[in-house]
Amino acid sequence: MPFRQPTGPPMSAPPDLQSLLNPRSVAIVGATPDVRRPGGRPLPFLKFYGYEGAIYPVNPRHEAIDDVTCYPDVGSLPETADMAVISVPAKGVLQAVADCHEAGIRAMTIYTSGFAEMGGEGADMETELKALAAEAGSIVCGPNCQGVANFNDRMCAYFASTLGKQDMPPGALGFVSQSGLFGGMMAAECQARGLGLGYLVSTGNEAVLDFSDVLAYMVTDPRIRVAAGYLEGARDGDKLRRAAEIAREHGKPIVLIKVGRTEEGAKAAASHTGSMTGSYDVYRAAFAQWGIIEVDTIEELFDVVEAFALGAAPEKPIEGPGDRVGVLTNSGGIGVFTSDKTREVGLRLGELSPETSAAIKANLPEFGSPRNPVDITLQAFTDPDGVGDHIRHILADDGIDGALAFFGVQMLNIEELAAQLATNARDAGKPLVVGWGQGDPRGLDLLRQLRVPIYGDALRALRVLAALLQHGRSLGRAEAPIPVPGEAAEAAAGLLHATAAAGGGPVLSEHAAKAVLEAAGIPVTRSAVATSAEMVVEEAATIGYPVALKIESPDIQHKTEAGGVALGLGSADEVRSAFERVTRSAAAYAPDAGIEGVGVHEMVAHAVELIVGIKRDPVFGPVVLLGTGGVMVEVLRDAVLRIAPIGEAAAEAMVRELKSYPILAGARGRPKADIGALVEVLCKVSELAVAAEDLTELDINPLMVLREGESAKAADALIALDTAGAAASHN
Amino acid sequence: MPFRQPTGPPMSAPPDLQSLLNPRSVAIVGATPDVRRPGGRPLPFLKFYGYEGAIYPVNPRHEAIDDVTCYPDVGSLPETADMAVISVPAKGVLQAVADCHEAGIRAMTIYTSGFAEMGGEGADMETELKALAAEAGSIVCGPNCQGVANFNDRMCAYFASTLGKQDMPPGALGFVSQSGLFGGMMAAECQARGLGLGYLVSTGNEAVLDFSDVLAYMVTDPRIRVAAGYLEGARDGDKLRRAAEIAREHGKPIVLIKVGRTEEGAKAAASHTGSMTGSYDVYRAAFAQWGIIEVDTIEELFDVVEAFALGAAPEKPIEGPGDRVGVLTNSGGIGVFTSDKTREVGLRLGELSPETSAAIKANLPEFGSPRNPVDITLQAFTDPDGVGDHIRHILADDGIDGALAFFGVQMLNIEELAAQLATNARDAGKPLVVGWGQGDPRGLDLLRQLRVPIYGDALRALRVLAALLQHGRSLGRAEAPIPVPGEAAEAAAGLLHATAAAGGGPVLSEHAAKAVLEAAGIPVTRSAVATSAEMVVEEAATIGYPVALKIESPDIQHKTEAGGVALGLGSADEVRSAFERVTRSAAAYAPDAGIEGVGVHEMVAHAVELIVGIKRDPVFGPVVLLGTGGVMVEVLRDAVLRIAPIGEAAAEAMVRELKSYPILAGARGRPKADIGALVEVLCKVSELAVAAEDLTELDINPLMVLREGESAKAADALIALDTAGAAASHN
Repeated sequence: MPFRQPTGPPMSAPPDLQSLLNPRSVAIVGATPDVRRPGGRPLPFLKFYGYEGAIYPVNPRHEAIDDVTCYPDVGSLPETADMAVISVPAKGVLQAVADCHEAGIRAMTIYTSGFAEMGGEGADMETELKALAAEAGSIVCGPNCQGVANFNDRMCAYFASTLGKQDMPPGALGFVSQSGLFGGMMAAECQARGLGLGYLVSTGNEAVLDFSDVLAYMVTDPRIRVAAGYLEGARDGDKLRRAAEIAREHGKPIVLIKVGRTEEGAKAAASHTGSMTGSYDVYRAAFAQWGIIEVDTIEELFDVVEAFALGAAPEKPIEGPGDRVGVLTNSGGIGVFTSDKTREVGLRLGELSPETSAAIKANLPEFGSPRNPVDITLQAFTDPDGVGDHIRHILADDGIDGALAFFGVQMLNIEELAAQLATNARDAGKPLVVGWGQGDPRGLDLLRQLRVPIYGDALRALRVLAALLQHGRSLGRAEAPIPVPGEAAEAAAGLLHATAAAGGGPVLSEHAAKAVLEAAGIPVTRSAVATSAEMVVEEAATIGYPVALKIESPDIQHKTEAGGVALGLGSADEVRSAFERVTRSAAAYAPDAGIEGVGVHEMVAHAVELIVGIKRDPVFGPVVLLGTGGVMVEVLRDAVLRIAPIGEAAAEAMVRELKSYPILAGARGRPKADIGALVEVLCKVSELAVAAEDLTELDINPLMVLREGESAKAADALIALDTAGAAASHN
Repeated sequence: MPFRQPTGPPMSAPPDLQSLLNPRSVAIVGATPDVRRPGGRPLPFLKFYGYEGAIYPVNPRHEAIDDVTCYPDVGSLPETADMAVISVPAKGVLQAVADCHEAGIRAMTIYTSGFAEMGGEGADMETELKALAAEAGSIVCGPNCQGVANFNDRMCAYFASTLGKQDMPPGALGFVSQSGLFGGMMAAECQARGLGLGYLVSTGNEAVLDFSDVLAYMVTDPRIRVAAGYLEGARDGDKLRRAAEIAREHGKPIVLIKVGRTEEGAKAAASHTGSMTGSYDVYRAAFAQWGIIEVDTIEELFDVVEAFALGAAPEKPIEGPGDRVGVLTNSGGIGVFTSDKTREVGLRLGELSPETSAAIKANLPEFGSPRNPVDITLQAFTDPDGVGDHIRHILADDGIDGALAFFGVQMLNIEELAAQLATNARDAGKPLVVGWGQGDPRGLDLLRQLRVPIYGDALRALRVLAALLQHGRSLGRAEAPIPVPGEAAEAAAGLLHATAAAGGGPVLSEHAAKAVLEAAGIPVTRSAVATSAEMVVEEAATIGYPVALKIESPDIQHKTEAGGVALGLGSADEVRSAFERVTRSAAAYAPDAGIEGVGVHEMVAHAVELIVGIKRDPVFGPVVLLGTGGVMVEVLRDAVLRIAPIGEAAAEAMVRELKSYPILAGARGRPKADIGALVEVLCKVSELAVAAEDLTELDINPLMVLREGESAKAADALIALDTAGAAASHN
């Protein structure tokens, strides 16, 4: 089978990481008393955190390290260690893994660098490592990683120095990182914010254990409220989808920062961990489709995970639109600023009901404003209880899904204000996020202790609110049933497979491609090639007037310039006279061109030209594309992607996400386009993408979307086949 | 004259704010011992900062306040105070101002609220206040403001409480704010960062003193390195332009955050200070055109002004493109992240020369990368001198305009590293900005003391670098000469004026509008209306083949649907037969429609359709617009604006900024469009915008840009006239 099919048999469960992340005992292969070296750290770190399991340093050159008995090899341990940290030179790693397997150890963390990221011999060693692990059925984290830690169970085998310098409190955040140093930065930031950390895992080269496996495991731990990660490139789109599904079943958010988005970034990523990042557009589609929260900056990552870890997310699905923000501020200026920014972060200002505004106005200082954004002027300096009442009124309003409270240079009544904010947020059951602009820094600590997310900037707070509401909305989203390809799609796939097997392709002619589309139930415009005036008239009558004529010649690229095009021909007379004209013009324009005839084409009037297609992504498999067509297409990049398969709801969402959607919907008195027919085409294309394993690329360009009720038709199409794959599957 | 003309007589110099911002003595009208009230603060604040001039509290109810003699009225002062702070109830303000005038005081700061921002009676009082000030020729800051401060001269009459709690060191930053609380936040943030502040001015309702006046004054002070501001809406575009010009003459940056950008924000701004924000698109055009640095977020504002205040900006114009960044990092992951973000902030990764890479590689740890982004892995923990060498090599490379150095979880060698970074940045003469990810917080203070801008996040650092480089580039930009309208533009303006004076308009017919364009030297497509087949043939011969026919009827909106259109007619025979067909079809389609004839239109083949226009902005005057035309125009919003007048260079920049520029430039084998002709049209439109005071709006839609060397022609145009203005100027 040339491509992994997402509708194939359900994936097996993700690996159980209990031994790796909550081991009963830990062996440290390559332990050393030198704490400047990675191998010198797990022992003191495990002791520092009060790890309760047995610790077995392994190094033939030492009797004991730091008063702990050291063993010459893993075979000599008094019991089978549950997990082994391996920190020996690269050339000794394979032997160390084999020794572990022989001793019955089935979970390992390999710090050592010099594998696939170096290419050549290193890559060969990594291939061998994979084979060893597969044979033994063992879990291997790394190589080229900084390790694993589980602070809720006092287990720290992550070698970032910050973890040995300052205590890391346990917590509700699980973090997995494809950059070891980034994991250390996350830990240090948690320490700086006084935020606890549950898991910290650096996956390194991911020879065996995958980024998504770690996410999937973490969300099943009841102590974890949010699983987050630093992602350069996923190895396997299906595993990421599975992790997202498990997270949704548990009602927990996955928050990711994806780097290596641009060409420059992808280049840098390739030289960093050798990972191929694939197309960022496809990642974005996958995140949106599977309810994964994507953050754009490192600061936003820290901010958003903190809010989820504090427990600020809605616990129940949000009823209503879920994007309407109420703002309370002591600065009219910040009120204006946040009004600007709500849309940018994907939210909008809600409208307070007259009752809410009246209730607020009753207790508002002069020059304040009881409308959204509510401006309390100096009230927080003198009357924190009144501010608490305002927050309660705002959060109770049915037109509000969540609130932002901003206080600039707040220096007084910090305790009272914090208590008011925390109480009213808890009682409302809607998220409240606080912005704290250059106020008394004690306010930040106080509110965090009261589990209210607070940030030193209004925009940061607003971005966090957007993430909390996104999660609340996705809680309420039912899992869409996965459509199965229908008979037509299977028939078209069979046609393609036969073509590929018979040595057809790799690219099908327009005529053949349209035949496949017709078989798949996708309407196409009619056309034919004629070589005489009478034939043209005959074909035109079959196709139906009006028709267009176009000179057919492989030698004439610019048909219009050659005078080889006639449009809107309404009668046999017009067709006849146009046939004479286009052949004469073309001959005059390019006397040496080979003319195959004149194409007679069904004319589609008042249609919106779109592009619909299928691409194969190396990570995510078949992807359905919908874009705006016409001359602007390359420049304006109006395209929407979804990982196949998609159902009707997803197809409808794709159409609405197009920038040119207003044109389809009939903006400014234009006729409405047949969006229903367009959605049907998208679904059928998705079915074809899933059924036709031989298909590597489909481009319907243009798809002519006619007026409402008049259908949507493929006017031209290109299909590319994976001939090698077809051949292979027949061998 | 209905509109202010930017090419009119040169503006007078901005007001001298010496008495307001560096007064020899200060009267406090409405002084009180109650420091909770605004009027209670200037006295203790002035004393706190060690103000050296005389302080005169004025309040008939006190003999002395805080041991300072209090006077019953400003007439009783022992000398004429240089400046007066007015903090009395709104109904007493006008009298207080009159008293000041009578006492010879010509500079005032009015704290009191309850003026234009309240509408009604308040607005009337503000009108009177303006009249009083104009008559006396006095400078008034406010009303409804938090005051003025000049910390370099120990003068603080700004009532934000943070200024009285903690010392504000003097400094190189001048800040002007249309939000009083925002000014207080800026002060508190400067205190938190240990950054000095020069001026702090809250302009409030700007009855007299304008935001831009303050900018223009501050940049002339040699102690000020950067003038910055929080802007809701400028009252006068010309004053902002003048401030930008003065800043450029002094080689200093203006940094602004503009709020009230969106519809929601503008609504909030209107209710905040009553300011009409106008179109944000026009502001953006003005900022870009005049070299004003715009920041997008509050955090970015604080970050960017800090870097300029530290003196990190290039002092000489940057040679070369000025956007090529070298990155050095101890985290491969952050290297990937910054690679992604360079483009987003308007920069790009530079390419290091082989010599630079070789020099770096010679002293780089294993697993490091000597290419951009340079990955030093753990070198900063062990060898700060080596890191300094790398920075020196990167900054010395001719392919690099500025550098970002990022250190994640840096805990060791802080002093050595800081010294290395500061020395090498100073010697290179190119900007270096440092990102400090969760490292020892002492690093932040150390580098700030060494005048190296440093931020706790890589992206924040990168955004600052973008601003520094933008300033460096604009230092090298010669001031473009302001084009003066030519004879053709004056002739067209005369034509319009005559039309308006004769009661024509307010909207001109297509025919009349095209006549104006022709007079202004802008090519138009030819067309005529004919009522018989023979007339059509005659007109077609005059216009030149091919032509298009279109039914002319006020009753038929959808001409194509009515069969009333024939395109690409190449001969008299075709024209004759098409005439019969379109009239017959139209009659069948709408039997009752009044048919005026058939339009004969010059056909323009292979043209790119653009929109070119003029709008009048209430703040900035005439604005030239260039946009992508066709069906996508409303949806894809590809439009570029410039404040008129523009010269050739600005017109060329507009064309390059179009998203659809690649289409004009001949992307993917398309023929190149006549960009030269397009630029000429833009210049002529700009001349017309400046010359024609009666013109309120011009829309050329579409402008057909033909192939290179073949011209650009207006195919349709609409002109709207200010008939009231013309009438008024003739009374």
